[in-house]
Amino acid sequence: MRAGKVCVMTDRNLAGLPPMRSVLESLVRSGIEHKVYDNVRVEPTDTSFKEAIAFAKKESFDVFVAVGGGSVIDTCKAANLYACHPDADFLDFVNAPIGRGKPITGALKPLIAVPTTAGTGSETTGVAIFDFEHLKAKTGIASRAIKPTLGVVDPLHTLHMPERVAANSGFDVLCHALESYTALPYNMRSPCPPNPINRPAYQGSNPISDVWSRHALNVVAKYMKRYAVRDPEDKEARSSMHLASVFAGIGFGNAGVHLCHGMSYPIAGNVKTHKAKGYNVDHPVVPHGLSVVLTSPAVFNFTAPMCPERHLEAAQILGADVSRAKREDAGPLLADTLRRFLYDLEVEDGLEAVGYSKEDVPALVKGTIPQERVTKLSPREHTEEDLSHLFEASMKLY
Amino acid sequence: MRAGKVCVMTDRNLAGLPPMRSVLESLVRSGIEHKVYDNVRVEPTDTSFKEAIAFAKKESFDVFVAVGGGSVIDTCKAANLYACHPDADFLDFVNAPIGRGKPITGALKPLIAVPTTAGTGSETTGVAIFDFEHLKAKTGIASRAIKPTLGVVDPLHTLHMPERVAANSGFDVLCHALESYTALPYNMRSPCPPNPINRPAYQGSNPISDVWSRHALNVVAKYMKRYAVRDPEDKEARSSMHLASVFAGIGFGNAGVHLCHGMSYPIAGNVKTHKAKGYNVDHPVVPHGLSVVLTSPAVFNFTAPMCPERHLEAAQILGADVSRAKREDAGPLLADTLRRFLYDLEVEDGLEAVGYSKEDVPALVKGTIPQERVTKLSPREHTEEDLSHLFEASMKLY
Repeated sequence: MRAGKVCVMTDRNLAGLPPMRSVLESLVRSGIEHKVYDNVRVEPTDTSFKEAIAFAKKESFDVFVAVGGGSVIDTCKAANLYACHPDADFLDFVNAPIGRGKPITGALKPLIAVPTTAGTGSETTGVAIFDFEHLKAKTGIASRAIKPTLGVVDPLHTLHMPERVAANSGFDVLCHALESYTALPYNMRSPCPPNPINRPAYQGSNPISDVWSRHALNVVAKYMKRYAVRDPEDKEARSSMHLASVFAGIGFGNAGVHLCHGMSYPIAGNVKTHKAKGYNVDHPVVPHGLSVVLTSPAVFNFTAPMCPERHLEAAQILGADVSRAKREDAGPLLADTLRRFLYDLEVEDGLEAVGYSKEDVPALVKGTIPQERVTKLSPREHTEEDLSHLFEASMKLY
Repeated sequence: MRAGKVCVMTDRNLAGLPPMRSVLESLVRSGIEHKVYDNVRVEPTDTSFKEAIAFAKKESFDVFVAVGGGSVIDTCKAANLYACHPDADFLDFVNAPIGRGKPITGALKPLIAVPTTAGTGSETTGVAIFDFEHLKAKTGIASRAIKPTLGVVDPLHTLHMPERVAANSGFDVLCHALESYTALPYNMRSPCPPNPINRPAYQGSNPISDVWSRHALNVVAKYMKRYAVRDPEDKEARSSMHLASVFAGIGFGNAGVHLCHGMSYPIAGNVKTHKAKGYNVDHPVVPHGLSVVLTSPAVFNFTAPMCPERHLEAAQILGADVSRAKREDAGPLLADTLRRFLYDLEVEDGLEAVGYSKEDVPALVKGTIPQERVTKLSPREHTEEDLSHLFEASMKLY
């Protein structure tokens, strides 16, 4: 890559861990000038994005390296983007309606992503998500142009993950696979964009994304329990889940996600007192993977009538006997299969277990409305009342 | 792409057919300056490559469009490459030992590939194959740098293919899938290249290529008979096989092919009098897909002991009952399954049926030796004697 000056981004927790050491040793050994930015915020905000962007603009970096989970990789994408477009306003490239959603036409610098969690798939996608603090809403930047150039996917980098962090990131993979496989087909999206440059990053399910989504689901079904709860030293399971995260990333990075992800943002954003097991943070948090998976039984029960074959196939991959199932059984069967899967993996018993009650439903629905970028990829159209029912049905799982 | 002047390449047969008409109408409608080169040779040679290169060098094109099968797309890759490296000698980028095999470090112009056959997968690969006339050997250029920027894969473009052309291009897909799925694993290749820029385009089977190879094989198993021999107007089958060609292309374009392809080059190159059904050419020819598939039962019987699970899985996908098969049955079982599959598809009965006899075996073996670029990806090491046995065993199939 003929790198002259490299910008390495990470977070404070990772700054002293082996993946960062490997990267820095490699840069030093090759005599490549570099600077480290280790101030990435876990669950980044517009403010934390802007700080990283300011750092990237101060120097003239010609390669970016992101070492971390989705927060680090997403922040690095934004830093690269705005450093290469120094005159752009921050909202120019942020998704409409919060931002202006302008297409990115200029070239960015190469970005090498070194994921240290198996879950986000951010190393494969053109999406960077952040909390827009002033509106209390998750939004992001979505464009093929910000996709990393290269991902270095090493399962040994995930060995430091505590058990619940591993489990939750695995649930994110599970939902990426299930949501992208059941997303609205690419040829049913409307209206057609006037020009390919205006195509959304999330195009709906298609013959390419289907291959990845289904394959990732097979790997999750085979390795998730070994990976998450049995033996953290099981390198075959860690390797397989890390690759499944990449595979699901390629799938959902093209097809998109829908209701579980759209509804997860207010579940994470409205957290009151929930202390997540295994997370070293000083504030209440519902981890992303958990916030996504808690609604999955209700969501897939709801979407099944639109493409029952795919829901039955998913249930079968996750271990259900579908030999005598009818099309109308698809929703309840996949929902039950997911409940059993989540119970075995010791997932909290629904939204109540992370601090929500029926009174919170209107706020959760309100927080889902602005997530139209993803919720419109649901195969089934939905009203606010439908969303209320989905949150209510997710209060208890077992 | 902000194209200023576009080079459109095709062959004489296609020049007046609908795919070319669509491309030209689109360029005219958008007011984009362009020139057409329709002198591509089917089964190109160093001479025909050089003519296309000279055409590309005369003008300053900023985008290339290839409309045709593998011959056209490969020729266009070479034209783009040398037009962007005007001072390079033709042999600089040709595979060693025939050429110098130098790595390509400069950037090429965008190339849009519009495949009109379902087979080669050239729209997905970084490989361009030609006959080096003076040595009577097939060789090529292999580098990620020459991969097309974009493929426009429209099944309607394949509707003009006669039945045997469709069948033979389907056999190419079948062998791409089977060979790449059974190719030497990427982590067993040696020696390691000193630098990633020296990595071969064909890296051995790996977790990414496996997904594509297996998926393509499933599609071939499901659609090949409908596509090739039953109803040429079956658009679902044409679409599926055209996509399978792309999928297998992504698989073998990364993993590589091995013995069937390595042995096919002398089978095609030493042709005496065979007139291929359905081909509008004035010289004897063994079509590429046919030359590849005729040795497949012998080849996979030979390679099975190195990875019997994958050979059994392939047999199962192609319709065999493997429930009681042992590992040592893998070779004969896959070979028998292939023979039945080829018989149903009315494939000529072995090398004898295309004009070869036992006396030709030494020449066929001699022609295989220089194909080390692919044959070294065979999972099983082989001597010249082994190659003789494989050709002999392929004289009759049924």
